[in-house]
Amino acid sequence: MVAPLKVGIAGLGTVGAEVVRLIENEGKALSARAGRSVRVVAVTARSQAKKRSLDLRGIAWVKDPVALATSEDIDCFVELMGGAGEPALSAVEAALKSGKSVVTANKALIAKHGIRLAQAAEKHGGALNFEAAVGAAIPVIKTLREGLAATGINRVYGILNGTCNYILTRMEQEGLSFAECLKDAQRLGYAEANPSFDVDGHDTAQKLAILASLAFGTKVAQSAVYVEGISSISPEDLRAASDLGYRVKLLGVAVKTAKGIEQRVHPTMVPKSSSIAQVMGVTNAVTIDGEGIPPITLVGPGAGGAATASAVVADIADVARGVRVNPFGRPVERLRATEKAPMERHEGGYYIRLMARDLAGTAATIATHLAEQKISIESIVQRHANGADVGKSAGKGSQVPVLLITYATHEDAVYRALAAVQRDKVISGRPQVIRIEKN
Amino acid sequence: MVAPLKVGIAGLGTVGAEVVRLIENEGKALSARAGRSVRVVAVTARSQAKKRSLDLRGIAWVKDPVALATSEDIDCFVELMGGAGEPALSAVEAALKSGKSVVTANKALIAKHGIRLAQAAEKHGGALNFEAAVGAAIPVIKTLREGLAATGINRVYGILNGTCNYILTRMEQEGLSFAECLKDAQRLGYAEANPSFDVDGHDTAQKLAILASLAFGTKVAQSAVYVEGISSISPEDLRAASDLGYRVKLLGVAVKTAKGIEQRVHPTMVPKSSSIAQVMGVTNAVTIDGEGIPPITLVGPGAGGAATASAVVADIADVARGVRVNPFGRPVERLRATEKAPMERHEGGYYIRLMARDLAGTAATIATHLAEQKISIESIVQRHANGADVGKSAGKGSQVPVLLITYATHEDAVYRALAAVQRDKVISGRPQVIRIEKN
Repeated sequence: MVAPLKVGIAGLGTVGAEVVRLIENEGKALSARAGRSVRVVAVTARSQAKKRSLDLRGIAWVKDPVALATSEDIDCFVELMGGAGEPALSAVEAALKSGKSVVTANKALIAKHGIRLAQAAEKHGGALNFEAAVGAAIPVIKTLREGLAATGINRVYGILNGTCNYILTRMEQEGLSFAECLKDAQRLGYAEANPSFDVDGHDTAQKLAILASLAFGTKVAQSAVYVEGISSISPEDLRAASDLGYRVKLLGVAVKTAKGIEQRVHPTMVPKSSSIAQVMGVTNAVTIDGEGIPPITLVGPGAGGAATASAVVADIADVARGVRVNPFGRPVERLRATEKAPMERHEGGYYIRLMARDLAGTAATIATHLAEQKISIESIVQRHANGADVGKSAGKGSQVPVLLITYATHEDAVYRALAAVQRDKVISGRPQVIRIEKN
Repeated sequence: MVAPLKVGIAGLGTVGAEVVRLIENEGKALSARAGRSVRVVAVTARSQAKKRSLDLRGIAWVKDPVALATSEDIDCFVELMGGAGEPALSAVEAALKSGKSVVTANKALIAKHGIRLAQAAEKHGGALNFEAAVGAAIPVIKTLREGLAATGINRVYGILNGTCNYILTRMEQEGLSFAECLKDAQRLGYAEANPSFDVDGHDTAQKLAILASLAFGTKVAQSAVYVEGISSISPEDLRAASDLGYRVKLLGVAVKTAKGIEQRVHPTMVPKSSSIAQVMGVTNAVTIDGEGIPPITLVGPGAGGAATASAVVADIADVARGVRVNPFGRPVERLRATEKAPMERHEGGYYIRLMARDLAGTAATIATHLAEQKISIESIVQRHANGADVGKSAGKGSQVPVLLITYATHEDAVYRALAAVQRDKVISGRPQVIRIEKN
């Protein structure tokens, strides 16, 4: 009979409480699967006095997270406090340095300090598991770290933030504005009072940085991710996308290019027929393009107490089994440095929406400036508000939207062409530019 | 420095050759990920003389698979010969009994002898990994065995056979008959000359039996799976399904019910909005409904040399790392016996297509017999060939299709009702019945 795995849990919010419950309720199945029983022996949280619908009898309460992390009574430290700073960082590092295994759902911590922590794990022989940090119960970390161990990866991309996908889905389906949908998302608890972390793409960037490291063997670095949020997207863009056979999603994309690994988060047009385009509401999804094989897409809940706890306890089960995989798939000393690939050199198709002055020659001016930058146009649509055809003026001074889809080109060429169009004063306002990702 | 993992491979068809190549080409990345290098030291195949575009220099040729399996020169036996019988069974069993680990892509072998082999693996301490046996590179075995170790599973279902999904996709999109699409599938190499194993559902049944065992902790038993193929499906059914908001897919479904675990393979109507309905062509997909969490769907290539080899080599990497998980997630002695849940007691919605005699009172007769069995009708459509409304006769003796969707009911009630309808001679031919699976 193997001794039980003794677990200490720091943080008893929604996820922490669910982890305690899951280990208690599924104890028998868990020990059958892990080969030994798992016992929560100690916990810590900000307030011991807080009322919790949780039976903590027989579980020690430790005041200080670092004291819990290094306690001789535990084998595995489960960090569910969150945040890239203290006390999470010190506690996790202390646990690893004392040879314990760590399980965490903390994407911010892993994105910022993942390398330093992985080094400590590898040096002292503990596991550092963080399946729940990306896509909650979707087993994307395990798939990249173990399931595709032998397959070169060309691209990994996905919908990693449920809040943004919920907002974009409602905008598309109901023709609502970003602001209206954000308000609803806040009311329903899908978005924070300060929504910037989600809607400006930072949450996606942290998760993408982790996936990129696992996929490409580079050092995790949130600073290497180009980030753009969804607040500029209008219902008109979503309607135009739909007419052209696309949907707009906030994607995190990490892709191997001739110029290095590109990591970027931005609103993206994806073909309606792609798996990722079918993903609606708060659901998350990740697609992995492996060398020589068709894409693999994993779809599921990217957040929520039960889904996150499911991944945390699966990680604990791996610790109990004695599984020790390098946190980023390869030993830290084998990970390459990550450089931030400049977006000016990004190559791809673009969707461009302009408000053009309704004058003879406007379309020609735009087309000429694109041609000067060697940008080929896949389609151009210029619509009069009254539905009249292009060329028939609706009156001097009026404006018409012009929608363009380009073939693959360089980002700097697009911006040079648009600057030239603006200098000619044939458009008003800021052009809307959305990158296209082909499947 | 840890000693390399020495691998012996039995079977050098498409997959075997790809495994040898992958280990050779990705050797550096693989050893970084696995913590030690992996070396193919010996192989066996039916014919040594056969020309192969494969560099086998430095690799020993062993004539007899069992001799290779038990050779002291190897640590891990990779079985890619296929078939539930000899020589695969003896070779795999011999390898396990000599304490070696085994990696196989052989679904037939695992579905038929999985328990006996898992027992040998557990007794002698080797791994028995078979990720490639279901869904090729889609990491569904790992997800059920490790990723959801702590989550109770209520249902697992999926598109597990690319041939059938290719045929149904083309039938739906082009209005072609089953026979025409099958011929094309054979021409393109998606279907065998003898297509029964695929189109009659047996391939799906073997894979489903494996998934059900992992999901529910029962003993793998292909004989417990109810099987029905797709040859009775007509373009009319697909058109009617589409009109009603459904698609028809050949699904393998394993589900926990009050009467036990139901395992069934049959053409199934799935809501168009479901993830599984989006899966087209030869692609495979599996959806897992875990307790308390939204469904997780894994989509990807379910066959092909590179995709299968990717999973085989990932399994080898786990062996190299020293990971030992019980082959069916739990120790064999903890697996429960599987009983075949009788389909008569299956509960669900049904699509029924009848050819009815175009007489006043026919619809009433049908509705009455359904009501006698307490079957509630969600929708009924009776269409005249000339588009006239129900009730206006197109002439004595003519026939009109009647389409019914029922609310959830028992299968035996459906068949009792249809028998009564047939006794009244208001329909001709055999009624078409397709089960509905809700997401």
